[in-house]
Parts: sequence; structure tokens; C-alpha cells
Amino acid sequence: MTAEETKRVWAALDGFKIEVPSWGFANTGTRFGKFLQPAAASTIAQKFADAAEVNRLTGAAPTVALHVLWDLPGGLADVPAIQALEAKHGVKAGSINPNLFQDQIYKFGSIANPSAEIRAKAVQHCVDSVEIGKALGSKDVSMWVSDGSNYPGTQSMRRRIEWLQDSLNKTHAALGPGQRMLVEYKPFEPTFYHTDIADWGMARELARTAGPQAKVLVDTGHHALGTNIEQIVTWLLHLDALGGFHFNDRKFADDDLTLGSIDPYQVFRIFHEFISSPASSKGDVAFMIDQSHNMKGKLEAMVQTVVTAQELYAKAALVDQEKLAELQDRCELVAAEEAFRGAFWTDVRPVVKEWREARGLSVDPLGDLHAGEYLKTITAERAASNAGGGSSYA
Amino acid sequence: MTAEETKRVWAALDGFKIEVPSWGFANTGTRFGKFLQPAAASTIAQKFADAAEVNRLTGAAPTVALHVLWDLPGGLADVPAIQALEAKHGVKAGSINPNLFQDQIYKFGSIANPSAEIRAKAVQHCVDSVEIGKALGSKDVSMWVSDGSNYPGTQSMRRRIEWLQDSLNKTHAALGPGQRMLVEYKPFEPTFYHTDIADWGMARELARTAGPQAKVLVDTGHHALGTNIEQIVTWLLHLDALGGFHFNDRKFADDDLTLGSIDPYQVFRIFHEFISSPASSKGDVAFMIDQSHNMKGKLEAMVQTVVTAQELYAKAALVDQEKLAELQDRCELVAAEEAFRGAFWTDVRPVVKEWREARGLSVDPLGDLHAGEYLKTITAERAASNAGGGSSYA
Amino acid sequence: MTAEETKRVWAALDGFKIEVPSWGFANTGTRFGKFLQPAAASTIAQKFADAAEVNRLTGAAPTVALHVLWDLPGGLADVPAIQALEAKHGVKAGSINPNLFQDQIYKFGSIANPSAEIRAKAVQHCVDSVEIGKALGSKDVSMWVSDGSNYPGTQSMRRRIEWLQDSLNKTHAALGPGQRMLVEYKPFEPTFYHTDIADWGMARELARTAGPQAKVLVDTGHHALGTNIEQIVTWLLHLDALGGFHFNDRKFADDDLTLGSIDPYQVFRIFHEFISSPASSKGDVAFMIDQSHNMKGKLEAMVQTVVTAQELYAKAALVDQEKLAELQDRCELVAAEEAFRGAFWTDVRPVVKEWREARGLSVDPLGDLHAGEYLKTITAERAASNAGGGSSYA
Amino acid sequence: MTAEETKRVWAALDGFKIEVPSWGFANTGTRFGKFLQPAAASTIAQKFADAAEVNRLTGAAPTVALHVLWDLPGGLADVPAIQALEAKHGVKAGSINPNLFQDQIYKFGSIANPSAEIRAKAVQHCVDSVEIGKALGSKDVSMWVSDGSNYPGTQSMRRRIEWLQDSLNKTHAALGPGQRMLVEYKPFEPTFYHTDIADWGMARELARTAGPQAKVLVDTGHHALGTNIEQIVTWLLHLDALGGFHFNDRKFADDDLTLGSIDPYQVFRIFHEFISSPASSKGDVAFMIDQSHNMKGKLEAMVQTVVTAQELYAKAALVDQEKLAELQDRCELVAAEEAFRGAFWTDVRPVVKEWREARGLSVDPLGDLHAGEYLKTITAERAASNAGGGSSYA
Repeated sequence: MTAEETKRVWAALDGFKIEVPSWGFANTGTRFGKFLQPAAASTIAQKFADAAEVNRLTGAAPTVALHVLWDLPGGLADVPAIQALEAKHGVKAGSINPNLFQDQIYKFGSIANPSAEIRAKAVQHCVDSVEIGKALGSKDVSMWVSDGSNYPGTQSMRRRIEWLQDSLNKTHAALGPGQRMLVEYKPFEPTFYHTDIADWGMARELARTAGPQAKVLVDTGHHALGTNIEQIVTWLLHLDALGGFHFNDRKFADDDLTLGSIDPYQVFRIFHEFISSPASSKGDVAFMIDQSHNMKGKLEAMVQTVVTAQELYAKAALVDQEKLAELQDRCELVAAEEAFRGAFWTDVRPVVKEWREARGLSVDPLGDLHAGEYLKTITAERAASNAGGGSSYA
Repeated sequence: MTAEETKRVWAALDGFKIEVPSWGFANTGTRFGKFLQPAAASTIAQKFADAAEVNRLTGAAPTVALHVLWDLPGGLADVPAIQALEAKHGVKAGSINPNLFQDQIYKFGSIANPSAEIRAKAVQHCVDSVEIGKALGSKDVSMWVSDGSNYPGTQSMRRRIEWLQDSLNKTHAALGPGQRMLVEYKPFEPTFYHTDIADWGMARELARTAGPQAKVLVDTGHHALGTNIEQIVTWLLHLDALGGFHFNDRKFADDDLTLGSIDPYQVFRIFHEFISSPASSKGDVAFMIDQSHNMKGKLEAMVQTVVTAQELYAKAALVDQEKLAELQDRCELVAAEEAFRGAFWTDVRPVVKEWREARGLSVDPLGDLHAGEYLKTITAERAASNAGGGSSYA
Repeated sequence: MTAEETKRVWAALDGFKIEVPSWGFANTGTRFGKFLQPAAASTIAQKFADAAEVNRLTGAAPTVALHVLWDLPGGLADVPAIQALEAKHGVKAGSINPNLFQDQIYKFGSIANPSAEIRAKAVQHCVDSVEIGKALGSKDVSMWVSDGSNYPGTQSMRRRIEWLQDSLNKTHAALGPGQRMLVEYKPFEPTFYHTDIADWGMARELARTAGPQAKVLVDTGHHALGTNIEQIVTWLLHLDALGGFHFNDRKFADDDLTLGSIDPYQVFRIFHEFISSPASSKGDVAFMIDQSHNMKGKLEAMVQTVVTAQELYAKAALVDQEKLAELQDRCELVAAEEAFRGAFWTDVRPVVKEWREARGLSVDPLGDLHAGEYLKTITAERAASNAGGGSSYA
Repeated sequence: MTAEETKRVWAALDGFKIEVPSWGFANTGTRFGKFLQPAAASTIAQKFADAAEVNRLTGAAPTVALHVLWDLPGGLADVPAIQALEAKHGVKAGSINPNLFQDQIYKFGSIANPSAEIRAKAVQHCVDSVEIGKALGSKDVSMWVSDGSNYPGTQSMRRRIEWLQDSLNKTHAALGPGQRMLVEYKPFEPTFYHTDIADWGMARELARTAGPQAKVLVDTGHHALGTNIEQIVTWLLHLDALGGFHFNDRKFADDDLTLGSIDPYQVFRIFHEFISSPASSKGDVAFMIDQSHNMKGKLEAMVQTVVTAQELYAKAALVDQEKLAELQDRCELVAAEEAFRGAFWTDVRPVVKEWREARGLSVDPLGDLHAGEYLKTITAERAASNAGGGSSYA
């Protein structure tokens, strides 16, 4: 690695931050049941503590995404408690996530429900989330709208577009000056015929109608198989419409596996599109982890994920943009591919380790997690409360 | 419709039976939560009562599949209670379904777990299920093995094949003379990198090794998108290896929607392959419903499903096999397709209604369900116990 | 069927027109070779004659889509010849299709090629196509841009967006007052890593930038498996951005099979979204067939397709919109589905036959095609010129 | 890298051989047309010369797969010419590939055609291919049977199984003692409703019925999206039924892109399953390239492919099998994954280069190809004959 390359990688690592989700430290599962972990977090205090440990080890995870229903059940009244946790642990509240899927009234939809009354309640929850964001000084409200239907003919997709627009417009109207509303899309699950915001095109149109502070949120697991996700990223950057990412990996559907576990080359390509875009320098794209690593140890998986993200980002930073552009212009396919993929082939673990050392961070975050006291302590402390299980399937 | 065609349809309807699952009357959901229904069944007594109502209305659902963990938590000791319900309601226990996914010890697998101890426990549960089947005079034990792994490299797919074979061989060895072991396959969920029994080829090999009473169980939702399911059915019939079906429909993954709700032409084609095979006359293929219609009313969805199945089966019975074979042999594509699809275009609802009337059944099962007392009564009775909800996601 | 329903179906059939493609009468194949047909058309005169026969039999196919490279190799100079064919056969030239994929200079792209010189040539071809459209009084120029790349890193997706926009803007600028530019999208093939216009979101953005006469063209075979195509249709109608359809069916990829052959229920749902939209009355959505039925007889397949389209459209017209909307609003899922699917179950062949008779059309188009002289004559006349074959694979 | 690891990699590279296909040096394309290359090979002499150049540069490609129709149009009579080329160029004829898709009589199938006469002709071609294999001392006959149908109902999938079995049995009967028949499978293309040999389960059953010298051929591009290919490989190895691979990569369908260009981690996993199986030491699994890199330069792409295959194989050889098995047994998921994926992260290019040097091979095969005389010479010599083009689409 040349000195220039090393410098580029270090600069990339210095600028790389990724948000961890509070729910990534809690027990999760599938509809067939949850496998419980002794060290899983139950309270928001535990989640902040865990997030702080991830940040301590990696230096790249200074914020934690909050889920209103689970982390601030008291709404605005819970903000001081969160602020106390921020002060105590040195990590900040990140994006605010309303919950539009769990209340029994949302059976046939939340902000796109045919009932005006239910829509109003759902919008109120979104506006409350915006207010929480304001109070916490948090920039982004992440709108995952799980609305949809299971059977052809049972709902009017056409009229629901209008309800959806109206609801999102109202939420946007509540935003403060520095806030953003990120509109997420997903092709299916938990509904299986139509999902009201099913792809980036729909999210983009809704964001455009809602207003200038609305952007699109790309969850890497929310695409049909085969979709060229990096191309969507490039389009959204081109349109100045990319708000952020929910990172995870998958082999089939929204599997919510850890980043880079199934197709690391794709993550590299996504990072490359970001880095090579002029938009990347503006600092307007939020990187967030959204996984449901229900088999791997929660903290272990989170540290592993941040480390993998750093390494894949470092690989992407290695691409010689200028040389690549020339080869692309001349349509020298094999040479361009070798230049591009050569960066992916490069083993960046040594240079990332040097950077960690220089920055006073753990040089072996996973090893130190296992060797340290924190994981042992919480495993012992929390084991009792982690029992039970149960299945949503029947 | 000619008299000959009417006769064919009536004969088909007389022979058509489809099993309902006990869990199809209970509340189910997705990992994001359950939407509870006032009339959902909680106890096995309620499930038998509901199944009897479906059979009363349709005349085609004389058996109910049982799930050992949920319906016979006491194991063999619960058999007399089941028999009392059979006697009371006039529907019989159908296939027996062990549960290999819910116990916390199954986190890394059940009968394919690397731990010999856990495998032994799982096999014991299977053998217990076989014994329950014997005691109830039930023919089939349906083996859905959800084992697998989430991340490349974390388990040895190769060694797990051997453990799987060993476990299934032991289960087969416990079968009584009239019993069968049906081996189900599924490409993914609840594991997302590899599933130990992922396709019909694997299920077929395992059944072959296990012994002559082992057959393959085809769940119509357990295939990659695009898969020609009717071709797999034809192959299994050709190999005398088809044990039965778990019917449901889907648009994306294992959506567990009601049969015929997304792609009714495919159901017609599957029925056609069955009817046109010499194997169909042997009565060895079990038709079972396996859905998780968590939005539709439980009883409503089940009655609708049986009626749709009857109608699609009647359409398939309308195909003129002899004429079709001739056109196929001459490669007269358009004529063959018109002959085939013409049966699907035919509105069989009138002839099915006539058949219902002649057999003394409800001529409008869905209408009579709504007009009758049963649904009203259970809705009132059960409402109190159906509260709560909750999500497996976080 | 009530008198009101019959009236609705007749009105729907009176308004239903679908364009046939000139290339649908010619020999086509796969990369593995062409299977030649004795009656296939080679010349534009033959294609017009065939199209006229389809229209004579069905009364629903008054226009024929033209492919500039194959049908007007002389460009504008060929317009009088086309006009003579229109006059002779009583069918009109329909949409104009430039060819951006066959010339050797398009190896690395046409209007998105890194070479400014090649882009200029491709744009000139598009502008020429616009001029042909003007001269023929044809409304739509259909832009299928097959540009893309096969390997990650070999082309800059980001910069190609700008080239694409520039080229489409220039083409739009050439449009006359009554003309439209329809932008088609496709996820893959003939390129296999990225396609520059890969989904409706990209097509929509490009059309928006190009100008008010640019709309999106939906080819039903150009989506990832599982995509809810009818929802995209609804969105485009909502945005007043739907220009037209290329109809065909498929099981896997862009299989180009005949409409309704694989999933007729989906075609019904697409027609339903169209009919139930206020936009449908404006007459601005072009229905076009785009198939490559290389196994079925060319004329046979085309007549069969138009008839199937008429029947599925009649089924969609049967849906009671008002009743359905009420049931949807009340979230009565099963009742709504039955109302919706009931229209699909209805055998409309008799009522369509009555309509044909009343309109003085053939009551059995396929039967009359086979019984008539036309097919026999062309089969004899053209057989000699249809020989050869060959594969693009190696 | 430890000395032990280096030794392991060198041993792996010494044992690694991969066959190149003669058609990989010729112009190919899609149904939309061929983009012609000046250096493409047209004659079998040119293909042998190109294959020899690949082998000279990489030391890993000593055999060339032959396609009977294109390379030995004279059948057995062409064998001496092939032998002369073997002698001249120092590369041997590899697998023999019959052609069952190009002749006009195969429109509705070859060895599964309803016509007994056409089946007999197709079987004769297979038997001729076996005889060619005997004469050339070639081990494998690769049976890619493209038979299938495009529309439901138009062919009897059931009866075609029997015809298929009969044809394959007859071909197997013609095999000499050292020969094998490899049965390939593919889900779709060139037929789009059903393919007679659609998945590994069908290929496996047909091979079993045919006899002990029949094995399954896995083309990595012939699976539904999401399929866990390495698991199928493991199953086939377990069953002693894996005959060989056709390697290529893809993003969507059977894209035939160069190996490792889309998902290199998957190739690594496939190699890992092979290496970790006891069956790998028997030398019975043929590695073959089957790509249609119609954009990349033919020779360039082939050299690049062999080099990439060597590097990914070296990575797989780096996995510490013993340690991995222990971690898997203890279900230490993250540790197991890190051990596994760590081998993939390792940059093996330096160690492969050392090995090349030690073996007297080019240390930079792609660079030397470009720097050398061979490519320049053939580009000049062949340019004249590479003109034309044409599309199969219309």
C-alpha cells in the first residue's frame, strides 16, 4: 500500500460513523419464536450501556437509534432520562423511530388506514416522534410504514396513496429547521400482497410531495432478489434524495443478517458509489445498522458489524477514482474491473489496525470485547431476566 | 357443461377431502406482532369445534391436523381427550406434527444439531409423535425440520446431513405398519443462510434412506419464486414419493396466504398434474391446508379456502385428458392450451352448488357461516381471552 | 349476468383497443437459436397484411407498432410505402420504435455511451424516429434503451445518468405537439450487471426531466419476480405518468410469452387498476402487445392474445367498483375479495361472443383463422423464404 | 501467512485444473444481437491455439471442452484433426458436448420430444458424441438437455419424464469403461414454462436410473436466485453424484458472466465445500468454465477467469478445517465465521505470484497476455473474418 493510499484509508476511517440501533441489543426472533440470550438488554439504560461499549471499542458508533414505543414509552416525558443516559455513557441519541405496526388498531394500516380516525392517531404518533427528536437534538425521524394488504382486491391501493401523502405531509409540517423525515420502503413483510411504500420510486415521490426535509431511507435488505442496490443509491444521490441507510445483509428476503455476511462485495460496491459521488462530502447521508442477529451474541454481532463496515469502507476508499474513470471512459472492461476489484481483494485489516492504534482505540475490538469485563458482567447480571420465549406463529 | 362433464366433476368432488390444521383457528402473526381476533380458538376443544363447523358447511374437511406441542402438551396422556373430541364433533385427528423449532435447546438445530444430546431429545419427541399417531389411528407424521444456519461457515452442512439421516432413520424405525413419515422441505425461514432440508431433492434423498414408509411433503409456499411446482409434483408422483401437500398461496416468500388468493391458475395446474397421474387413484396423497391467514377471520378464511379448493379441483377435473394428450403429442400448442385453459375459464360455481345441494350440504358455505349461530356464539364467548399481542422483533 | 353488467362489458369491449407489433409476425428466437415458421412474415407488407387479418377477426387491433430499423430501413423515405400499406389494409401505423441495441457501435451503450460521438449518433436515430412518427401521424415513440454494463466497476452508473438525461431531453425537444416519448424500463438483459433504466422510478425521473410529453412505458415482463406490477400501474396513473403498456406474460425473466398464459389473474388485476382509475377515461394510455411467441404460430398466437386480452378486460369490467370500495373501506377482507375475484371466476366467453356477433365480427376468431383462406395462403407463399436458423450463443 | 499455510496453498494450486470451453473463444451474444470481436476464434484450430495460450500463461487449463456440432461437424471423421491439434498445441480435448438445441427438428424437444423418430435422432447424436469421446480418450460427455415447453398444458411433463429416462439410459449404455455421462440441469431458458431437467433433484434421479457412470453437472448459473448452491454441491458430494461444474457468475438469470465477477464470496464457499469433503481427494469432479463473456475480450476474459479461479481456490485452501470444525461443533458462530471469512479476506495474490514464479509460469498472466505477441497477431489475422452481427429477436 502506498503512502497516499494509506492516507486515503485513514481519512476515510476518520470520517466513518455508523449508528447502532437500540433494538439490536435486545432479544429478537422470527415468527417461529425467540431464542433468548443471557446478555440481551431489556431496558434503555442497558441498551445505552451496550452502545457505549461498542463505541469504546470501535470509535465509530457515537449514536444510538431509538424506538419510541420501546425506548420512550412515556413519550416526551422520557426525554430527560435519555439525556441522562447520553451524559452518563458518552453516546448520543440518534434517529427516532416511530412504531406504526404493533398497536392492534393498525391491523389494516396506520397512516394509510381507510379509517380517518386511525390515520389521525398514527399521524399524532409521528408528530410526537418529531417532538421527541427536537427535544433530543436528533436530526432524523425514520419512517418505516409497514402498511399494506395481504389479498388482491381487499384494499384500494389507489386511494391509500392519497391517505399516505396526506399523513406524511402532516408529519413533515411538524419538523423543526434542522430535522429530516426519512421515508423507508420495503417490498413485503409484514404484508404479503401489497405494501404501500414498496420501492424507492414510491418513497421518492412521497418524499418529494412532503417537502424539502424529506429524504429516502435505503434498507439494504428491502429489495427484490437481484436488484442492483448500488444503482438505486447512485440515483438517489444524483437526485439529492438519499437520506441514509439501514445496513444489514440477506440471502433471501429481509433476513436482517449482519452486514457483509452474505455478499461483502455488494457492500463494497455500495460504499464505492457513495464515496465516488460529489454528494458524499456534504455529510448528509446517515449510516445506520438495522439487523436482527438473533443467533449471534448481541454485543459480539454489533462489534463485528462495525468492524466489518470499517474494513469494507476502507477497501472502497482504496479505489483509484481517477484511474477508474479513465478506464471506464475508454471501455477497457477488464482493466477497469481489475482496478476496481483489486481494491476489494486488498487485505485492509493491517492498515485498519494501524489506524486503530494511532487513534488510541482497541486494535482488536472483538478480542477485547471477549477479554474484557463488560460482557462477562452483563451476562451474569441480566441472565435472570432473559427467560421465556414464545412464538407468533401459533 | 355436458352430462359427462358434470358427472366427472361430481365424482371429483365426492372424492375430494382436505385436512384443516388446528393452528389455523388460533391467533397467529408475523415477527412484527399478532393482530388478535375475538373468535380465535385457544384450546384444542375450540379447534375441534371449529373444524367440525368447517366440515359441516363444506363436507370436505373430515380431519384436523394436530400439533403435538400445542394440542397434546401432555403427549400420549392427552390422547383420550382427543378421542373424546373426535367422538363429540365427528371429525377425526389427522396428521401429527412434532415441533422442532420452539424449544430453547433448538437454537442451533434439533435433529441436525451438532450436539448428540440435543439430537437425541429431538428424536425422542419425533418418536413420541409417532406413538401419538399410533394411538389415534392417524396415518401421517409430518416432519417439518426447521434446522439450518444463518451465516456461512458457522455450521458444517456436510456433517449435518449425516446427523439428519440418522435422526430420520430412527424416527422411521418407530413407525407402525400403517403409518408414514412425511418429510417437508423449505428453502429458508426461520434460518436464512442454509436450511438443512431445503428442497425436494434433499427431502427425497432423506426419505429414500429412511425407508419405504417415508414420503415427501410439498408445501406450496416453500419454493423459490418462479419454481414450477407442478413439475415437482409430477416427478414425485412418478417416483411414488409424494406423501401429501401443505396448501397455501404466496406472492413473495412463505407468505402463508389462503389457497388460490394470489395465483389460482397455479393451483389448477397442480391439481391437474395430480388428477392426470395414474398415482392419483391410489389415494395415497394427503391434501392438507397450512395457512397463517392472520388478517382474515379464522373460520371465514378456512371455509373460503375449502370452497376455493373444491372449485379449482372441479375445474381441473373438467380437463379432457384424452383430447389433451392427443394435442400434446401432435405439438398443437395453441389448441392444447385452449383445451387446458378452457377448463380453468369455466365458471364451475353453479355445478359445485348443484353438487352441494344433492349431497345435502350448505349451498353457500360462506353465507351460511355468517348467517348461522356458530360464529356469533364463539365470537361472544372467546372475546375475553383474546387480548394481548406482542412482537418477536424487538 | 345482469343487464347492467352486460352493458358494462359491452361498453368496455367497445372501448378496448390493443396494438400489435410488426415484429410479432416475424421469426424470433432465443440466443440458442430460432425455430423458423413457414407462415412467418419477412417484409413490412406481409406484416401489415397479417395485422389486418388480426384486426378483421377481432375488431380490436387497428394499429401496428413499427420498428424503424426493420420496417423503415430507409427512414423517412419509407413513409409513403407505409402509408400505402395503411390504405391498402385498413390498419394504421402505431407506435414508432427506434433501435438502440443492434448496431455494433452500441456495444457499450447507445444514448448513455461514454463516447459523445456515439451518443450523438444514437440521439440522431431517436430524432429520426420522431420525424417518422410525425410524418405518419403516429402518437408515440417508444424508447427502449438497452444500455447498461455486465461487470461491476466497468462503467460509471453515475455519469451515465447525466448522459442519458441529456439524450432524452434532446429527443423530447424534437417532439411535435401531439407526440409523446414513452420511456421503457427493464431490470436486466441484454446487460447483466446494471441497466441504465432499470425500474419505473428511474424511467419516471427521466421522463419528468425530459418534459411534459414524456411518459413511462410499462412492459409487464420487465420486473423482478414478485413485483406487484398493478401497484406500479396505480402509482403511475396517480402521477399522470403512465404512457402505455407492452403486454406479455412470463414465469421467470423477460420470457415474452403470450398475455395471460402464465398468470391471468395478474392481468385481470392490472386491468382492474386501470379501469378503476379516473385516469382511464382520458384515453391516454396505449395498450400494446410485445411478445416473442417463438413456439406458437405467429398469427395464431396474436389472435389468441387479443381474444384473451378482451376476455380478461371484460372480467375486470365486471367488478362492481362501488360495492368493492365500500367493502374495502370497512376492511371486510373476505367479502371484498369474493366480490373482486368473483368477477374473475365469471366465464365471460359467452357474453364476449354475443358482443362479437352484434358488432359483426367473427364469433370464433381462432376457429375462423384456421378455417379461413388467409393462413393457408400465406403458409404456402412464404414457406420458401423461411429457412436457415442459427444461434447467437456460439 | 505461516509456512504451513503457504504449503497448503501451493499444494492446492498444484492440484487445481480447470477446463476452458472452445466456444468461449468464439463470438457470442444475446437474442438481441452479437457484438463481434476482432480476435474471436472461428475455427477449431484457432480455438485450440487460444486455449494453449491460456494454458501457457496460467498452467491450469490443460484441456478444452469441445462442442460436437461446432467443432466436429463431421463427427468421428474429425477426430484425427482434433488429435493433430492436441499434438500441435499441447492441450488435450476435454469434455464432449452434444448439441440438442439448434436443429430445427428440436423445436418441441430433442430426447424428450413426443415424436419417437425425433427422439431416436437425438439419441443417435448423443451416442455419436460418446463415440467421439472414446476416440479422443475424453472422459466426460456433458448432457445439456434444453428440452421443455413454453406454455402450461401444451406438453405432458409426466410422459416426457419417461422419454427422457429412456433416452438417457440408451446413451449411458453406449459409454465405454472410463467414460461418464454428466447430466446438467437448468430452471429455464430457452424454454420458459417447464424445462425437463430443471433442478439437481431431477438430474440426480435421471443419473441414478441411467447407471453408475452417470453423474450430475452443476452449472453455477442454473439456479433460482437465492439458491444455496454450495449446499447442493455438498449433497451431491455426499451422494457420490457430483460429476463436475460449469463455472460462471450471474446477477439475475443464466447471465454467463465471468467467474467471481458478481459474487466472489459464493465461489469461495463452493470451493470450500469441495475442499472440505473427503470426496475431493478422489479427483472425480471436473472443473469447467462455461461463460458467454460477450463484452470482454475473449482471451482476456479467459485468462482473467482462470487467474480468479486460482486465487479463490487458494483462499478456500487457507481455511483451517480442523479449527473450523471445532468452532462449528461448539456453535461459536462469530468465531467460526471470522475463521472462515478471514481466509476470504486474505489477499492471496502475493502467494499465488510466488507459486507461479516457482513453477516457471508467467507471474502476471493478464499483463503478459497484453504485452505478448500472440494477442496482437491473432487480432490482426482474424479481424477480417469477424464481421456481420444480427439478432435472434426479430
